[in-house]
Amino acid sequence: MTSFESDYNNGAHPIVLQHLIETNNAQSASYGFDQWSEQAKDKIRQACDCPDADIFFLPGGTQTNATVIDSVLASYEGVIAVETAHINVHESGAVEAYGHKVITLPSHDGKMDANELNQYLQAFHADPTCDHMVFPGMVYITFPTELGTLYQAEDIEQIHTICQHFDIPLFIDGARLGYGLMSFDCDFDLPWLAHHCDVFYIGGTKVGALCGEAVVFPRGNAPRHFFNIVKRHGALLAKGRLVGVQFDALFTDDLYFHIARQAIDKALQLRQLFIKANVPIKDSPTNQQFVTLTNSQMQQLLSHVLFETWEPIDDTHTLCRFVTSWATTDDDMAQLSQALDALNN
Amino acid sequence: MTSFESDYNNGAHPIVLQHLIETNNAQSASYGFDQWSEQAKDKIRQACDCPDADIFFLPGGTQTNATVIDSVLASYEGVIAVETAHINVHESGAVEAYGHKVITLPSHDGKMDANELNQYLQAFHADPTCDHMVFPGMVYITFPTELGTLYQAEDIEQIHTICQHFDIPLFIDGARLGYGLMSFDCDFDLPWLAHHCDVFYIGGTKVGALCGEAVVFPRGNAPRHFFNIVKRHGALLAKGRLVGVQFDALFTDDLYFHIARQAIDKALQLRQLFIKANVPIKDSPTNQQFVTLTNSQMQQLLSHVLFETWEPIDDTHTLCRFVTSWATTDDDMAQLSQALDALNN
Amino acid sequence: MTSFESDYNNGAHPIVLQHLIETNNAQSASYGFDQWSEQAKDKIRQACDCPDADIFFLPGGTQTNATVIDSVLASYEGVIAVETAHINVHESGAVEAYGHKVITLPSHDGKMDANELNQYLQAFHADPTCDHMVFPGMVYITFPTELGTLYQAEDIEQIHTICQHFDIPLFIDGARLGYGLMSFDCDFDLPWLAHHCDVFYIGGTKVGALCGEAVVFPRGNAPRHFFNIVKRHGALLAKGRLVGVQFDALFTDDLYFHIARQAIDKALQLRQLFIKANVPIKDSPTNQQFVTLTNSQMQQLLSHVLFETWEPIDDTHTLCRFVTSWATTDDDMAQLSQALDALNN
Amino acid sequence: MTSFESDYNNGAHPIVLQHLIETNNAQSASYGFDQWSEQAKDKIRQACDCPDADIFFLPGGTQTNATVIDSVLASYEGVIAVETAHINVHESGAVEAYGHKVITLPSHDGKMDANELNQYLQAFHADPTCDHMVFPGMVYITFPTELGTLYQAEDIEQIHTICQHFDIPLFIDGARLGYGLMSFDCDFDLPWLAHHCDVFYIGGTKVGALCGEAVVFPRGNAPRHFFNIVKRHGALLAKGRLVGVQFDALFTDDLYFHIARQAIDKALQLRQLFIKANVPIKDSPTNQQFVTLTNSQMQQLLSHVLFETWEPIDDTHTLCRFVTSWATTDDDMAQLSQALDALNN
Repeated sequence: MTSFESDYNNGAHPIVLQHLIETNNAQSASYGFDQWSEQAKDKIRQACDCPDADIFFLPGGTQTNATVIDSVLASYEGVIAVETAHINVHESGAVEAYGHKVITLPSHDGKMDANELNQYLQAFHADPTCDHMVFPGMVYITFPTELGTLYQAEDIEQIHTICQHFDIPLFIDGARLGYGLMSFDCDFDLPWLAHHCDVFYIGGTKVGALCGEAVVFPRGNAPRHFFNIVKRHGALLAKGRLVGVQFDALFTDDLYFHIARQAIDKALQLRQLFIKANVPIKDSPTNQQFVTLTNSQMQQLLSHVLFETWEPIDDTHTLCRFVTSWATTDDDMAQLSQALDALNN
Repeated sequence: MTSFESDYNNGAHPIVLQHLIETNNAQSASYGFDQWSEQAKDKIRQACDCPDADIFFLPGGTQTNATVIDSVLASYEGVIAVETAHINVHESGAVEAYGHKVITLPSHDGKMDANELNQYLQAFHADPTCDHMVFPGMVYITFPTELGTLYQAEDIEQIHTICQHFDIPLFIDGARLGYGLMSFDCDFDLPWLAHHCDVFYIGGTKVGALCGEAVVFPRGNAPRHFFNIVKRHGALLAKGRLVGVQFDALFTDDLYFHIARQAIDKALQLRQLFIKANVPIKDSPTNQQFVTLTNSQMQQLLSHVLFETWEPIDDTHTLCRFVTSWATTDDDMAQLSQALDALNN
Repeated sequence: MTSFESDYNNGAHPIVLQHLIETNNAQSASYGFDQWSEQAKDKIRQACDCPDADIFFLPGGTQTNATVIDSVLASYEGVIAVETAHINVHESGAVEAYGHKVITLPSHDGKMDANELNQYLQAFHADPTCDHMVFPGMVYITFPTELGTLYQAEDIEQIHTICQHFDIPLFIDGARLGYGLMSFDCDFDLPWLAHHCDVFYIGGTKVGALCGEAVVFPRGNAPRHFFNIVKRHGALLAKGRLVGVQFDALFTDDLYFHIARQAIDKALQLRQLFIKANVPIKDSPTNQQFVTLTNSQMQQLLSHVLFETWEPIDDTHTLCRFVTSWATTDDDMAQLSQALDALNN
Repeated sequence: MTSFESDYNNGAHPIVLQHLIETNNAQSASYGFDQWSEQAKDKIRQACDCPDADIFFLPGGTQTNATVIDSVLASYEGVIAVETAHINVHESGAVEAYGHKVITLPSHDGKMDANELNQYLQAFHADPTCDHMVFPGMVYITFPTELGTLYQAEDIEQIHTICQHFDIPLFIDGARLGYGLMSFDCDFDLPWLAHHCDVFYIGGTKVGALCGEAVVFPRGNAPRHFFNIVKRHGALLAKGRLVGVQFDALFTDDLYFHIARQAIDKALQLRQLFIKANVPIKDSPTNQQFVTLTNSQMQQLLSHVLFETWEPIDDTHTLCRFVTSWATTDDDMAQLSQALDALNN
């Protein structure tokens, strides 16, 4: 059945797969010291306009978050995030497992408010009891957010300025980075982003790879012995080339961005279908779309296409998530269109 | 240049790769709930003769060790291993990162001595101060060991009996399990192993896969909420199918064992070459071979083939490691043979 | 200068000190196996009407919380607490240091709402993604709360019933337990409390001791090897008698309760003084009193008596905390009365 | 019965107790900001000849070790110690609980050999796989050792020089520091020690206090936010004065050293008694004495005096430990003498 459940329910994008096939028989150094990893790093440095960037490839998102956060924080520091942040909700406490608190601020459609961040940090340092509290040591935001929303350049600039003022790094979780950058609502590009934070990662798993994320410390500012920290977190692949080869393909001829744009285009079509069907749909400029279905509509639709039930709204309505990806086909859209037509009759 | 550096310097075995290609376009559930993961688990259960086994796929070895050990131990317990154990030396303290001590016993060519284990456990429980000490909560051994050696069935049986007597589980790290089972010196098979320990893993990364290890709790004895523990360790792949598909291929038509046997055959040939060349070689029945080279021999050889320098023996000799795999070709052997011939002239 | 800053700015209650003096020259077993610790445990068991209780003496509150919570939770579990809970705010992340998340619910004057707890737990277990989340493994409440407020018997009964329904233990932090039990607003006694939770501690440091807290597992339900866990947390005193002797005194002739009642009496007098002086004072039935002072009043008062500024209310007003204890004298009250009189002129 | 079981089976030295009594009624700031703590720190700075030293008071030894080690190490670093080190054997894994490995070297009567340390560090940094290993981040030694032995100035100087060469700090656990410094075999004093390490602690619990250890960073080199780290470890006493007052007494009129000398004198007398009784006794220049008793002698003696059985030597002999302290009386010595006389008849 056609599935809009997630952007990680397929294999790899065909071009990524092709590069894995072509390189399969060549021998290489292990642990990420192979030629494709090196090439991929160079291409990412160029795409970010960060010639001195330190780049590392890790297998998955939760591990990347836990490793980066743990590598940057002192033992007595925590990471600031909004309540709906992935690290606060859906990573099974992987950050706390390494001893660090997630300090939460309110979520505004998944986003952090710069003023609230500033107020929290001001209040913390003014508090005479702060030596009994967890020190804020990093700010974590997601782009796009878990709810598909986007920060504008101005938002990120404000947050970054506050971080610099308080001398704490800004970390941007880009599990779906491509979908954010390729959204028509995004008013900046990858180099701009790389110059307005201290560390971020370029998500591969959800943007065409079988697995893998690329961590970027844009100014060669990786923490000392980051390689060792990656190993300690169990995040070092013996065949590091597996991720390197995939990112080598993703950052050749802008494939990463084409993949993302394709999903955005499909998301816009999908929005039109729901609007035409008079189904309430949230504003979202990325590849995750949230619609409010009556429970009976939900049941009807589920017999034709797969999607995720996000959370109950009231006794008779449910918020549901539809996700597009590079693998979403015109045929998938036709299936959904038919299912929605049936709904209204 | 021909490389004998490791068994993880290639891509995937062609049949494994082929299965990834064939399944690439199909959609599936994520986080390991896909059809290939399910199939692979069934095939492994059959190969182990353990119909009730709990099976989980994780991306890499260090992570698998840290996750399994942490899942089984109580907070105040440590894991017993020999001094040369991978978890004690080459995993950057990943076990300690989750709060657990590695309690060491002497290494006998990489192996644990059952009597020494028994003495340690007897002494621990007889010690009136043991409530101030880390409790032994698990025994960890590797098969084959880091030095390429093997336990005999009798050895493992003794260790397992001691574990049962003291009510602590036995965990066998099988990063290179295939090479052990397919060695001509091995006097047991996979089902026997599965019935003589409490948890083990079947290494994929070093036996033909791009990545991935299969953890087996043979009697359905996975710790409660093991899935959640895997996630907390950052070891849950969104596209869990990546490992599932590969193990599905590896456990179809005994591919896993064929791959391993092929490497063993090549290792025996390689032994003959060194013996013929009068180079001292250690007894090793698996795919890792250790030879003693004069430093001048080592330099000469390194200009023709790649291998790992293991450790200095004295000022003029070095222990070197040569590893074979499914990817080792007759041509590779010819290259080595020529290089060795050149050495003696 | 007279101080109302806290209930831990004196030495020990004279009777507690006297017992330390009397026992000083006697030799004893170490690590809490001395006769006074044993006696004290018996007396506490009797006071709680819990003949089978497991009792342990630890040096301080933060350590007691971290140790008890870590001892009860599985690695993948977190502890539920209100946002203002001491463990969430003022213990420098000691709970997270051992890998556990503090899961927060709203604070209602420092108290947890039973319905909100129930809703959270219902929603958690209904959430299909809960296997990616930190499992709730314990409920933590404080009695009295950090804000001096009290739960009624009915509140605790409801919370405990919910805990039992979801099979998670209820832990009551009694750093100031005496002041709660001796408040005129408290509608239960120590045995009732001991029978309506799974573990609690009787605070000594803030109720007349130099240091020390008594952890009570009322039904002999201490986690396995709790002694070892205490040691692992660095919470085992070599001269365990130091705390044992003090609790032996505190639970002889109801001293613990007399000390607390004395502080409550003084708190009621203090309330009268503020009311008479027309200073707004919050409802609080225990030994911590919170008043709203203009900043100019605050400055004037601070030149006569010491107290804690709690938090700014607005640009011209500050919430201030006055705490009484067994050591608060009639003379202290007179000083405060004079200072308040001066204020109004 | 007379006890030689330990140096922590009494209360406080009478002068220490007296100071607690005298200061009991005065009010003070909490968390160690009281006047006695300040005074005590000044006196310790003077005794160490370290005017810039950072000094902190913690309640007990295990906690002090875990806190200091965790505060100094990076997440990926471990601490080097000999196999018999207290942190490696008798602290229930408190160091590992915070994620750090204890890296062991051989024990020579409880002491670390400078050459072996140097060899280990050389080999580590020469090892091409060291990025997969736990980095050595600190050296931990005990003075006196757990076996009552002492390093000479030359030994410590060598170890410290190696530490400086490899840029890792040297930490000296002085749980029984006084007994070491006051031994007739010690060829240095407290200021010398303070200038030949990077952090050490002056043990109070075993040298006359009820509890408490003084951590000294001799050159004002405490890690950033050490106070917060202490709190996070649960090692911050609300009534910090409890330890401050005791150290104020211990470092007035050289009381700390008098107490230790008294125990050394008694230890020498005790040695004479065993020698006279023809009981084999190990060389030990401090207050812990180790004798080899036949099991029948041991049983006979145990009916007259208390002491600790250390470890079985063979089927018929046991190594036993006798410890003296400031509280050991002439009468105690007479009891032992009688018991030994009885033995020989």
